[in-house]
Amino acid sequence: MPSTPVARSETGDPLLLTPGPLTTSKTVKESVLHDWGSRDTTFVNINKSVMARLPAIVNGGDEFVTVPMQGSGTFAVEAMLTTFIPHDGKVLLLINGAYGQRAKKICEIAGRSVAVHETPEDTPPDLAAVESILRNDKAITHVFMVHCETTSGILNPVVKIAEIAERHGKSLLVDSMSAFGALPLDMKLSRLDAVAASSNKCIQGLPGLGFVICRKTALERCKGQATTLVLDLHDQWANFVKTGQYRFTPPIHVIVAFHQALEEFDAEGGVAGRGKRYAENCRILIQGMRELGFETLLPDQLQAPIIVTFRMPADKNFVFQTFYDKLKDRGYVIYPGKLTVADSFRIGCIGQLLAHHMRGVLTAIREILDEMNVRSLNGEKAA
Amino acid sequence: MPSTPVARSETGDPLLLTPGPLTTSKTVKESVLHDWGSRDTTFVNINKSVMARLPAIVNGGDEFVTVPMQGSGTFAVEAMLTTFIPHDGKVLLLINGAYGQRAKKICEIAGRSVAVHETPEDTPPDLAAVESILRNDKAITHVFMVHCETTSGILNPVVKIAEIAERHGKSLLVDSMSAFGALPLDMKLSRLDAVAASSNKCIQGLPGLGFVICRKTALERCKGQATTLVLDLHDQWANFVKTGQYRFTPPIHVIVAFHQALEEFDAEGGVAGRGKRYAENCRILIQGMRELGFETLLPDQLQAPIIVTFRMPADKNFVFQTFYDKLKDRGYVIYPGKLTVADSFRIGCIGQLLAHHMRGVLTAIREILDEMNVRSLNGEKAA
Repeated sequence: MPSTPVARSETGDPLLLTPGPLTTSKTVKESVLHDWGSRDTTFVNINKSVMARLPAIVNGGDEFVTVPMQGSGTFAVEAMLTTFIPHDGKVLLLINGAYGQRAKKICEIAGRSVAVHETPEDTPPDLAAVESILRNDKAITHVFMVHCETTSGILNPVVKIAEIAERHGKSLLVDSMSAFGALPLDMKLSRLDAVAASSNKCIQGLPGLGFVICRKTALERCKGQATTLVLDLHDQWANFVKTGQYRFTPPIHVIVAFHQALEEFDAEGGVAGRGKRYAENCRILIQGMRELGFETLLPDQLQAPIIVTFRMPADKNFVFQTFYDKLKDRGYVIYPGKLTVADSFRIGCIGQLLAHHMRGVLTAIREILDEMNVRSLNGEKAA
Repeated sequence: MPSTPVARSETGDPLLLTPGPLTTSKTVKESVLHDWGSRDTTFVNINKSVMARLPAIVNGGDEFVTVPMQGSGTFAVEAMLTTFIPHDGKVLLLINGAYGQRAKKICEIAGRSVAVHETPEDTPPDLAAVESILRNDKAITHVFMVHCETTSGILNPVVKIAEIAERHGKSLLVDSMSAFGALPLDMKLSRLDAVAASSNKCIQGLPGLGFVICRKTALERCKGQATTLVLDLHDQWANFVKTGQYRFTPPIHVIVAFHQALEEFDAEGGVAGRGKRYAENCRILIQGMRELGFETLLPDQLQAPIIVTFRMPADKNFVFQTFYDKLKDRGYVIYPGKLTVADSFRIGCIGQLLAHHMRGVLTAIREILDEMNVRSLNGEKAA
């Protein structure tokens, strides 16, 4: 049994140091202890308030609209890709991880033509190569990228890609799932037409709702393009304009919790405030882990303060499942790796986590390494 | 202000006499006051338990599997139709309301061939006509029907349609959204290959999850048929078999609440117990409304004990919005009509509603009719 105190959230749960669903505040969860009719004015107004507030988080004004999508973030990404890219369009997919690969799968199933620029999971897209592809393939109408690729935790260069997309007159679609609300993103970048995210990442709501912030002039051209009824963002939007209501039953409690989460997000100072806390969590984590001898996959300039990938130690005494279980016993839930380039594990910095929680996990890790008799981290080169 | 006491649920909310989302128990809502990781054993086991219990509710054994679908009931219906009906298949849609129409729209967008047998909203399908269509159109591979059409509240004849489908060797797909858990349904009917429903109807959970109970031998043949990634039931199922986990973030809190709702469903005696309470709610409602002079759209033998459609009174003093608002002031939320055949409104019998709630709404309605000076209901023939 651990000698350090077992960590717990406000509601007595293990802390989730994962890419989400995350540890949320007690008040967010308590906001759902009621029932609302889906067509009732009270709920309709809560939903309207949520949707109206989201564009401002990415510097979007009246020329943008939020279209919610029941389900999850991937439901929003599939809705974005299949609504915005016409049947005769073609999308350049910038891939450096599992979420880029997922977008490719979505496009292929939906019968959308794709071009691919793929780089290793620890490498951002090659700007010259992107430029060259767009110059040479005139059929391309859209560019898709992942803001922070949770596979590795890498921060991809949205502003630079937006500049290239603009130069070539291509529409840019961004999956900002794990970055939205914590890292700055500017919808004013011309040709950035849509950004997809979800309720349960950096805004710290409950899972069950995705959304896409859409440039109205771009969305207006998408009527009839979607390959499904439920994932049709244009139809969903048109119905809100007409009735103020969802076409199909919304996850009411998740939306009410999202509203409460937005209140708490604003109280923390929005993107600046939340981003600062996460950056501090990340700094404490990386510094402490390096002191213990762990190596990060990414150099600091590519690391988003969302989730950190650590290389698996070479020491044969380090058995990941044991390490994971012992951390969970102490109240810290971490995440396995998803890399193809290296054996690894991940620790998240987002959610209702504070500096003392990050110091707590470091203390627990130090203790566990002793228990596991792992001694050769420091100075060892990992596999 | 009303002279009768204002009705409230256990959590102080107006009672939802709607087709759902419904009034749920306090304990269902309180079950979500925690955070769980989506890959954590605790949550994975809760989800597994939920999925394992659902087939038995419709008399399904080991030859059936539940495939959950994030989103809502309509997400599950679209997933069912686009996964089960192959690109070169053809479905006969039995339509007598908005949910049948919605299925048609889904099939048309997905490029599935359809044949339609449509009857008025107060009329079940014509069995001889269905028989004749199946005899004459050999291209038809599937039949789709709605168990209880919430548009009117009509109970459609699943057993008889299943017999016809079997005789002609067609696969039957059923939308049992508002009936699942309250009305008997028997998956042992041969050729009944899939039934779609959701968390927030008669099982009395929170909204945000749909599911499809699938005959394994039928589902096995569906690989690669879906037109989307997220709505692909075969892929969702295959991933559960492989990893026990969702492909994409599940609405964890909604699923945990669904688990609690199933506990309470079992404690009430399952389909028999819950169906009995709803039938009693419905009986009290219809008898009381008829005593006041209201007319039901449907004759009793076609009325499901889920939601009742009443014809709009002819009396010009009866203004529906006023009636609705005055009922809401007294704590009862009812539902507008959705009929094309007659001007109407609806009152639901499902959710955490007891006999005294139904008697309460009748008392409130009597009082409101007096206030509105509506006197000519009794004996009047509605428009």
